[in-house]
Amino acid sequence: MSDKMITLSQNDIPKAWYNVVADMPTIPDPPLNPGTGQPIGPEDLAPLFPMGLILQEVSQDRWTDIPEEILKLYAMWRPSPLFRATRLEEKLGTPAKIYYKYEGGSPAGSHKPNTAVAQAYYNKEEGVRRLATETGAGQWGSALSMACSFFGLECTVYMVKVSYHQKPYRRSMMQAWGGQVIPSPSDQTNAGRGILEKDPDSPGSLGIAISEAVEDAATHDDTKYSLGSVLNHVLMHQTVIGLEVKKQLEIAGDKPSLLIGACGGGSNFAGLVFPFMPEKMAGEDIRFLAVEPTSCPTLTKGKYAYDFGDTAQMTPIIPMYTLGHDFVPPGIHAGGLRYHGEAALVSILHRDGIVDAVAYTQNPVFEAALMFARTEGILAAPESAHAVKAAVDEAVRCKEEGKEEVIVFNLSGHGLLDLTAYDAYLAGELEDYTYPDEKIAESLKNLPQF
Amino acid sequence: MSDKMITLSQNDIPKAWYNVVADMPTIPDPPLNPGTGQPIGPEDLAPLFPMGLILQEVSQDRWTDIPEEILKLYAMWRPSPLFRATRLEEKLGTPAKIYYKYEGGSPAGSHKPNTAVAQAYYNKEEGVRRLATETGAGQWGSALSMACSFFGLECTVYMVKVSYHQKPYRRSMMQAWGGQVIPSPSDQTNAGRGILEKDPDSPGSLGIAISEAVEDAATHDDTKYSLGSVLNHVLMHQTVIGLEVKKQLEIAGDKPSLLIGACGGGSNFAGLVFPFMPEKMAGEDIRFLAVEPTSCPTLTKGKYAYDFGDTAQMTPIIPMYTLGHDFVPPGIHAGGLRYHGEAALVSILHRDGIVDAVAYTQNPVFEAALMFARTEGILAAPESAHAVKAAVDEAVRCKEEGKEEVIVFNLSGHGLLDLTAYDAYLAGELEDYTYPDEKIAESLKNLPQF
Repeated sequence: MSDKMITLSQNDIPKAWYNVVADMPTIPDPPLNPGTGQPIGPEDLAPLFPMGLILQEVSQDRWTDIPEEILKLYAMWRPSPLFRATRLEEKLGTPAKIYYKYEGGSPAGSHKPNTAVAQAYYNKEEGVRRLATETGAGQWGSALSMACSFFGLECTVYMVKVSYHQKPYRRSMMQAWGGQVIPSPSDQTNAGRGILEKDPDSPGSLGIAISEAVEDAATHDDTKYSLGSVLNHVLMHQTVIGLEVKKQLEIAGDKPSLLIGACGGGSNFAGLVFPFMPEKMAGEDIRFLAVEPTSCPTLTKGKYAYDFGDTAQMTPIIPMYTLGHDFVPPGIHAGGLRYHGEAALVSILHRDGIVDAVAYTQNPVFEAALMFARTEGILAAPESAHAVKAAVDEAVRCKEEGKEEVIVFNLSGHGLLDLTAYDAYLAGELEDYTYPDEKIAESLKNLPQF
Repeated sequence: MSDKMITLSQNDIPKAWYNVVADMPTIPDPPLNPGTGQPIGPEDLAPLFPMGLILQEVSQDRWTDIPEEILKLYAMWRPSPLFRATRLEEKLGTPAKIYYKYEGGSPAGSHKPNTAVAQAYYNKEEGVRRLATETGAGQWGSALSMACSFFGLECTVYMVKVSYHQKPYRRSMMQAWGGQVIPSPSDQTNAGRGILEKDPDSPGSLGIAISEAVEDAATHDDTKYSLGSVLNHVLMHQTVIGLEVKKQLEIAGDKPSLLIGACGGGSNFAGLVFPFMPEKMAGEDIRFLAVEPTSCPTLTKGKYAYDFGDTAQMTPIIPMYTLGHDFVPPGIHAGGLRYHGEAALVSILHRDGIVDAVAYTQNPVFEAALMFARTEGILAAPESAHAVKAAVDEAVRCKEEGKEEVIVFNLSGHGLLDLTAYDAYLAGELEDYTYPDEKIAESLKNLPQF
């Protein structure tokens, strides 16, 4: 029988991260200081990040060696398996081959630990004692809590208050790994106190939580800030995903025609796709497809412009696809896809026509996820389910066109802590919401001006 | 660096299950018909099980070929990784090597799918349309729901009512895979209605749920019953675990001195340990250690005797270690270890001095599990955490004795759906309960008499 699971051995864990900047046709314009409007330098980032990560953020080198200690930690869940979705192919009757890279086998259940352990390592190296971060649904906060526990760092997670109460299991995970979880807005920061004064019952938001974590790091000498997506160095850490996929497809004897990833901040998408940029640039016929929700259609409906990374306008101004920093996405189940912006690297690749994008409403996404669960077993995270849906649609297209394409998607996490989403779908309670064009136009009026 | 994760390829999935009966010094006496007290034959089991599984239940053959279709499904999560617990070893400062076989990577999060897909296969082969089963915490019910979805079988799960309400995520998993979940006691069976008449607010119990599932199967021609542990064929299906471990230890260049598994019904313990029986019988120095909770101390405090498998006295009478079929274990967090009896095969091996046993209270178990999570990353299921605790204790003993033993334990599942247990531990709310000897003596007075 053909191989269902393509495994690699520990020696096959990539020894270096890949930096797509080395192979892109256009390099993004630099981030700007929100106060001066001038390009930021390393010194602007130093209060928030250790120099090891800042250098990676601005690096144009194609490869960065992965330190031995990080490789040792990667070996706890890497190399991750590449699966052939044979039973899904049969179900669809498609001539396409469908592969999925499964990142849900990490202890935290997603791809997030790939960058969490790297970030914890570089902070530890430079004597940092504590990391502060924000988390919405909790995927990132739990990955960073785990990584900090490995290095003996303290970890403070500002968790959006409504999620803190609605997702007690995610909070438990962080606490089990020793993380301190603070419902945000909190009375620990000026930003939080300001919000609470106006609205003591504020449910919080990712924007507020970011402000609290950034303030915490900026006001404590022994503390730095950590971000789970969007930034160049975060995307680079995730390239171990695609680098492994290359080896695994070689073993399977296949070349990819289409690479698919769900896209929120961009890290799981970039992790799979970026390592194939040299082939794409050399003219090979590979499509890159980013998948997002219609309720937060950054790439499909947003504007490529300089914008703030957060609602409180504290972060650098970044050139990216954005729905406007005032954009408030509705409470869909794919919490990881609710960001108003998009990584600068993914954004410019979309602008340049190298990355395609598609958006779906919730019900078709969960319909596909359920078909996937009943054929392939795995219950996908709501975010990853967007990639499942796109893969199914593309496989159906291949059937209609009689094409034997090789489709690869990133199953970036399992959904075992998001099962209420499946409940809501089965109960017919999910809304198929599309964010209206007028409201996006309204929100885009507030972009920073120069 | 030495290997952290020892992977195998798809070709290494065992092609045959191992039957320990072929190598045991004593074979257990036969199960008895609860009505007649006579040894049961295949015809007694036919209303509940397909003949393919009944033949496995009574088989004395050393090897049973695994059908190709089951191998294909195994490839969805097998071979599972064997990890070297390097960071735990460092933390303990032990000269021992600690390995753990990780079964939590299956889509259902535990080892249970190894037998679930096999049972679904043999039922499907014989034209069965629906399977009925019981579940407590939900591990088994979710594994069987998934397996049934692969074969287009219907699945009815009687779930202990208190768990149905307390563990909504497990219920969601079963429903996502198409399982019908019925809180037990229910009005669907005579057994359930009888209980509800006496106590409309009954929280249910595993004993009641078994009675409902057995009655459902026995009274419907197109329906069979399915059990997730205890029976010979179930333990045999799980031997893929230990057979893979043998290959993986060979790759690592190590021979095991000690094999450890948590023991409820016995299936994850047997799955790891049984394949090493030939070496043990040949005189190699290997210890087999079963771990149980002091609140349900079947092997350490129970009696080897014929007893019923359920409280309602509907199942065959089995020779086993038992605390008495009236035994009501307290509500500890390791729900999978709350069975009053023990697999006949594990029982007689313990009686014959081939399997050792140890019991722990809850707090030391979760203390060890937390140390494990913060060094090795994985949050263990409460059941598996018992094996973690024993491995830690044995590694500490090795340190004291200066011995370089090779300790291997079965990490049979992750605890991502059991995080309230970790919460309770961190909050200091776990009780260190030891079931009193007098109460056990009392419960043992009601063993069936001949």
